Amino acid sequence: MSLLTELLATVPLVDHHVHGCWVDGGSRARFENSLNEANTEPLAAFDSAFDTQLGFAIRRHCAPLLGLPEHAEPQQYWSRRSELGEQELTAVFLPAAGVSDWVLDTGFAAGVSAPEQMAALSGGRAHEVVRLEQVAEEAAAAEGDYAAAFTEIVERRGADAVGTKSILAYRGGFEGDLTEPSAAEVREAAQRWRDAGGTRLTDRTLLRFGLYQGLRLGKPLQFHVGFGDRDCDLHRTNPLHLLEFLRHSGDTPVTLLHCYPFEREAGYLAQAFNNVYLDGGLSINYLGARSVSFLARLLEMAPFRKILYSSDAYGPAELHYLGARLWRDGMARVLGEFVDSGQWCEADAIRVAELIAFGNARRIYNLG
Amino acid sequence: MSLLTELLATVPLVDHHVHGCWVDGGSRARFENSLNEANTEPLAAFDSAFDTQLGFAIRRHCAPLLGLPEHAEPQQYWSRRSELGEQELTAVFLPAAGVSDWVLDTGFAAGVSAPEQMAALSGGRAHEVVRLEQVAEEAAAAEGDYAAAFTEIVERRGADAVGTKSILAYRGGFEGDLTEPSAAEVREAAQRWRDAGGTRLTDRTLLRFGLYQGLRLGKPLQFHVGFGDRDCDLHRTNPLHLLEFLRHSGDTPVTLLHCYPFEREAGYLAQAFNNVYLDGGLSINYLGARSVSFLARLLEMAPFRKILYSSDAYGPAELHYLGARLWRDGMARVLGEFVDSGQWCEADAIRVAELIAFGNARRIYNLG
Amino acid sequence: MSLLTELLATVPLVDHHVHGCWVDGGSRARFENSLNEANTEPLAAFDSAFDTQLGFAIRRHCAPLLGLPEHAEPQQYWSRRSELGEQELTAVFLPAAGVSDWVLDTGFAAGVSAPEQMAALSGGRAHEVVRLEQVAEEAAAAEGDYAAAFTEIVERRGADAVGTKSILAYRGGFEGDLTEPSAAEVREAAQRWRDAGGTRLTDRTLLRFGLYQGLRLGKPLQFHVGFGDRDCDLHRTNPLHLLEFLRHSGDTPVTLLHCYPFEREAGYLAQAFNNVYLDGGLSINYLGARSVSFLARLLEMAPFRKILYSSDAYGPAELHYLGARLWRDGMARVLGEFVDSGQWCEADAIRVAELIAFGNARRIYNLG
Repeated sequence: MSLLTELLATVPLVDHHVHGCWVDGGSRARFENSLNEANTEPLAAFDSAFDTQLGFAIRRHCAPLLGLPEHAEPQQYWSRRSELGEQELTAVFLPAAGVSDWVLDTGFAAGVSAPEQMAALSGGRAHEVVRLEQVAEEAAAAEGDYAAAFTEIVERRGADAVGTKSILAYRGGFEGDLTEPSAAEVREAAQRWRDAGGTRLTDRTLLRFGLYQGLRLGKPLQFHVGFGDRDCDLHRTNPLHLLEFLRHSGDTPVTLLHCYPFEREAGYLAQAFNNVYLDGGLSINYLGARSVSFLARLLEMAPFRKILYSSDAYGPAELHYLGARLWRDGMARVLGEFVDSGQWCEADAIRVAELIAFGNARRIYNLG
Repeated sequence: MSLLTELLATVPLVDHHVHGCWVDGGSRARFENSLNEANTEPLAAFDSAFDTQLGFAIRRHCAPLLGLPEHAEPQQYWSRRSELGEQELTAVFLPAAGVSDWVLDTGFAAGVSAPEQMAALSGGRAHEVVRLEQVAEEAAAAEGDYAAAFTEIVERRGADAVGTKSILAYRGGFEGDLTEPSAAEVREAAQRWRDAGGTRLTDRTLLRFGLYQGLRLGKPLQFHVGFGDRDCDLHRTNPLHLLEFLRHSGDTPVTLLHCYPFEREAGYLAQAFNNVYLDGGLSINYLGARSVSFLARLLEMAPFRKILYSSDAYGPAELHYLGARLWRDGMARVLGEFVDSGQWCEADAIRVAELIAFGNARRIYNLG
Repeated sequence: MSLLTELLATVPLVDHHVHGCWVDGGSRARFENSLNEANTEPLAAFDSAFDTQLGFAIRRHCAPLLGLPEHAEPQQYWSRRSELGEQELTAVFLPAAGVSDWVLDTGFAAGVSAPEQMAALSGGRAHEVVRLEQVAEEAAAAEGDYAAAFTEIVERRGADAVGTKSILAYRGGFEGDLTEPSAAEVREAAQRWRDAGGTRLTDRTLLRFGLYQGLRLGKPLQFHVGFGDRDCDLHRTNPLHLLEFLRHSGDTPVTLLHCYPFEREAGYLAQAFNNVYLDGGLSINYLGARSVSFLARLLEMAPFRKILYSSDAYGPAELHYLGARLWRDGMARVLGEFVDSGQWCEADAIRVAELIAFGNARRIYNLG
């Protein structure tokens, strides 16, 4: 085993964008549906989420941790999983991920473990990012001036958090005006929204307002980019539509999450702006055996100090482990090929692996 | 030879989107021009369609079936081809494709063999898909109410067919409104179109009307997507522009054909919608030695029960064979690599190969 | 060593789009900033252009030519580079590129060597392309009718040049009307522009006018496409937005430069139009170890007689050498794989290598 392979098998990771693990057990249908990201309906009767790259990857990589053979049959996997229950599964998979720091997006957290539980179950530390659209909904529900309420909440919650997150991708996408609105525009828009009930923010003015408040906090601002469920129009989440916003985003780190199938565009932006970063969370899990070439594409135009690791796991604890496992194996193959073909030297490959595994994330999230 | 390689060399295919073979001989210029899909003008004098991936693939894979060495020179290949004539070429190449079922798009069929001829020449069965824009043109030429005429024709022709096909990509593309028009809107648009002569449908209202009538038939609706000739604006055939249509497409299978260079977007849609499928027909032939990585990209986000095989061959019988041959060889390499690297087991690879070769197509086209 | 590898190591290249080498020395900051194409600001303090694919490729491929070990440390590389100075570096790297003909874009040439110097330093010949936007600025500064002045300048300068170049990508991009404006429209627009000072052309009418004058000259018209600095909106440089322009571009060769991440779209256009060509200059250098798969993508839909080589090097002489070196090594791997897997024969691979290295460029630029 080369030094590089050894390093990648054991290097501690910062999972800089992740959610909690399921707390309670559920049906096989719930499990299978949780393995399809894009579909918002229940899977068709003729289909099975086990017949996907993600399903194959779970049977390959997760089965052995449950005492099953690699590639265990779906029914066998499901039976074993059901015997153990979510608590025990979490206790198996979280520590096996080799993650030192979980940066949790708690903006969407129904039925999953809280940061402190994640820390306790994994042996790692947990940190939080604050979802800006959720702050907006809290500000709408508050008394008095909306902008003041927003600022107060984002500062208070942000003080304990390591960053913020925007799901603008799901609230109209990136195309169109993303300049900062005036105080009067915010006031008017907030009044309209409050009058209409103040639920599920889709008002563009207030979404824009939130982004600039996020920037002002000075902690990394995460954007959902690309791959997600069909409620977002995938073509409106091409990060190139963020160009004008990024030109005015100052020094606050902006991290582009998931990115598939726009990872080349995201890499370009990471080269073009000193404050832009990218990762391939979520996409890596869903690509399974095909994640190797995806990881290679993340290593194109983006400077190596601008690439991060995340799993974006949510729900089944398999996903928290699998993200790490596929990243470790895939990076070993990609970087190993650079070294074996004489393009890179091994010392550089190891250094780049460490930058992406934890170095860059510790630097921008101030994880010490 | 592994079990997987052996399976892929012999597995019977459903070619779910294909056209007829040339009936009559022609010039070398006709042959070379038929090997360039995108250009609508004759090839320039300095150029040769033999100097492309497709040309190289024909010399590599088709030459031996004509008693020539692999990589035979273009002039040698052309001489041998001319000696044999289209009938004999068809008799060589069709059976060699190993196709059990040809699903023929007869909407564009000048100078090529009809379904029954394809069946007779190949030893396989032939089925038909009905082109919706052609139905529209028949309805425009009919007496009385346009909508009633359309419905009558699509139901009558659809009863004997296994599906429908839309070339909306060539009639304005996917961008813009794709909702179902009202009866009054259809009536008015039909009147306008009939008054203008009723030839070559480009009226958006009537195109939209046709799509929903196609969905109502309940048999798979095929869409030309991506790669084609320059009469269509390639960027307007990005299947993501079908998102809103797909959200209202119900349970009728929708199959995205060709897809290059939007195969990742198409795969995403196949995950996002229970009724969406994709293939890589046409593109595989044109990519030749580069089709291997294209086939790998088809195996990313799309569930394995949502991927189909087709050649989209039209004209030279080489294309009907080559589509199958490149698919067999390419899949053996892609799936073989998944197995060799330990990501998949061989039994799964074989099962996925069978799903794509025939299983999924038999299920959705009801081929028994 | 195979015949193919040997050929690729030594085949003389036409670098059909390149700029001059630095004339004077500068700081390490200048050097590092010249290794980031997309960013228009100085690199952040935490970053280093050495920690990129380009930086790694320089340490790997250029260090040995300076008497250093492969993968020499950045500080070591910088020290050695500083000792030598730009003149000596140029004397090392230019001849090592194995370029017989440099086709220089002199439209942006501050602080870099002129064509005759490039020829003298490299032992090759130098030719010039004329930047259309620069001709426009000269015409704005001239007396009398703008259109007449433009035509006079482009014909005079074009007589000694081998082609023209457009940076429309940086002056609003490809989206929108690209038809030829009327004489009256040109007159009016020119008056407006002259009244406003006549600097940095962004007027769409005059940009369109320039393109058609370029076409009329009949020598190849180069377009900046895709990858470049963040002043251009990358998504507005998708070459598919040139479709309508290309449909009216006649026989004058149009060459699409750089192309990343739109190389598949560019390849499609090269198949669709007899007069369209593509290359991967600039992108190859920036992709470093990842340029191999990029070179493979250039060999998809584009006919082999429509692909060109360029480095698009500007400034550090390393880039003039590295473009050639990465192209030679990458093509050896890509074509070698086609041959080793039995898809291509070696004689074809050698012929294609020669077409792309020099054959196609000599033909269209009339280099004799």
